[in-house]
Amino acid sequence: MSHVAGVDIGGTKTSAALIGRGGEVGRTVTVPTPAADGPAAVLAAVADAVHRLGGDPAAVGVGSAGVIDPDSGYVLSATDAMPGWAGTDLRGGLHDLLGVPVAVENDVHAHALGEAWTGAATDTGTVLLVAAGTGIGGSLLIDGVVHHGARHVAGHVGHLAVPAAAGRPCTCGGRGHVEAVAAGPALHADYLAQGGHPAAGDLRAVAARAEQGDEIAVRTLERGATALGQALGGLANALDPDLVLVGGGVAGCGEAWWRPLRAAFTAELLPPLRGLDLAAGRLGTAAALVGAGRIGWEAAACATTCCLH
Amino acid sequence: MSHVAGVDIGGTKTSAALIGRGGEVGRTVTVPTPAADGPAAVLAAVADAVHRLGGDPAAVGVGSAGVIDPDSGYVLSATDAMPGWAGTDLRGGLHDLLGVPVAVENDVHAHALGEAWTGAATDTGTVLLVAAGTGIGGSLLIDGVVHHGARHVAGHVGHLAVPAAAGRPCTCGGRGHVEAVAAGPALHADYLAQGGHPAAGDLRAVAARAEQGDEIAVRTLERGATALGQALGGLANALDPDLVLVGGGVAGCGEAWWRPLRAAFTAELLPPLRGLDLAAGRLGTAAALVGAGRIGWEAAACATTCCLH
Repeated sequence: MSHVAGVDIGGTKTSAALIGRGGEVGRTVTVPTPAADGPAAVLAAVADAVHRLGGDPAAVGVGSAGVIDPDSGYVLSATDAMPGWAGTDLRGGLHDLLGVPVAVENDVHAHALGEAWTGAATDTGTVLLVAAGTGIGGSLLIDGVVHHGARHVAGHVGHLAVPAAAGRPCTCGGRGHVEAVAAGPALHADYLAQGGHPAAGDLRAVAARAEQGDEIAVRTLERGATALGQALGGLANALDPDLVLVGGGVAGCGEAWWRPLRAAFTAELLPPLRGLDLAAGRLGTAAALVGAGRIGWEAAACATTCCLH
Repeated sequence: MSHVAGVDIGGTKTSAALIGRGGEVGRTVTVPTPAADGPAAVLAAVADAVHRLGGDPAAVGVGSAGVIDPDSGYVLSATDAMPGWAGTDLRGGLHDLLGVPVAVENDVHAHALGEAWTGAATDTGTVLLVAAGTGIGGSLLIDGVVHHGARHVAGHVGHLAVPAAAGRPCTCGGRGHVEAVAAGPALHADYLAQGGHPAAGDLRAVAARAEQGDEIAVRTLERGATALGQALGGLANALDPDLVLVGGGVAGCGEAWWRPLRAAFTAELLPPLRGLDLAAGRLGTAAALVGAGRIGWEAAACATTCCLH
């Protein structure tokens, strides 16, 4: 057993990689997620990607979009980006297709587990990870263990009320949450709504324009980052983490985003927390694969010592 | 060993009670806290209160105002209400005075431990307790264990930004936090500032007036409760607790406060959390004494089996 496979299932693409005993990332395969074709097609695509890795992985660990129950192996809920995904027997279905032990987890929790294994959060007591992308997700690790909460929903740090979002509709159906002003799509829409250059087709373009001095782009990133920093500072006061890690696509927006994020975060902190900083992850997009590999190795060990798979 | 002593040290008064093996509250003594006279006077008052209990307690558990390090036994920080309290060797000092094993904890954490032992939160996975009083404190229990965080600061749920508090100075030195609009002193001051009856000398009087239909009192409680409910709903989304318990003096303001609190809390919740309710504690002001008794029993067990005190 020299490898397991780590899998990261997202709404648009799915990656699989061979992960070594020390978290080394080997051969990696990325395929489109056939989300619109339904869960069976997604599971088949995952199995195909794992087969293409070769290397005879001893087990498979999966980080998936959606609310995942690692105990039952089922997807408890998911967004409209993956129709029918809720209710899928993720672990059982992949075990049937692959014939090796399978462990499953939410993708943001897998991201956090990856950073805790070989990235920016090794040997760290309390870690609050924030993934700022299409949504604002998160994960709380306490002594290396994911805090799942009562319904496996814990980590949804995007649904705190912040002043800048007051009244704005949120993807969750509520209003006024930080995700409604700080997630990637909100930033891009805000830039255009403020009169930004119509050729900026996505957030990456907005960030590039901010770097070139586009004032509307700078102010847009500043507003979103400030709202997020404020929410994270308040959460830090409540949770007193050793480390707050920030990842996801929005975190790639450069200093025009990081500077106001840090300023707003720091301004919120209680005196004993001063000095707590926001850090970028070290593993980038591989983090969830590494974390998935981690739970894959646990499934492999479990299968040889304590339970049937 | 039929009893330990549980002690609750607050800024104005200190209580001690005999606590039985099952959490039964026996004889209780309450004395003023000689906070202005400094830490030695406070420790002496605690020791005196414990002696007056009689019953030969096998150990003493203490819940104290301030940031407490249960491992070192020291007070790490405290508000101006207890000058010099920060830096006090709370466990060592009381052990010297009392000659029995002593365990120490923050008072809000002790409150949560009490409710988890014999109150509203027994056998509950994740419990978020909120104590709304002079400040807005809190405690997070995960499977019965206090989440202390990196600096023993965790639980400070009053220092999240909420729209209603935007710009308002907070006791922590920051601005815009929910404590600045939802704590007892803020509610009382707001009532008077909005033109409320000047004879209402404290929050209890404001609550009584709200019950009698005083519109300013009703709106004041509604504003504060709404802000707090919003903050707690956002925290619930991030932490996915099994139970959110609300206690403290402000929670005694009746339905004029609870109704808007519940409404604002529920409005924030992600769909999978719908149905999560806010509950009142069951032990009232005895909760911290019971929780202190719990850690007292742990210290007693530890002293007989594994360590020197």
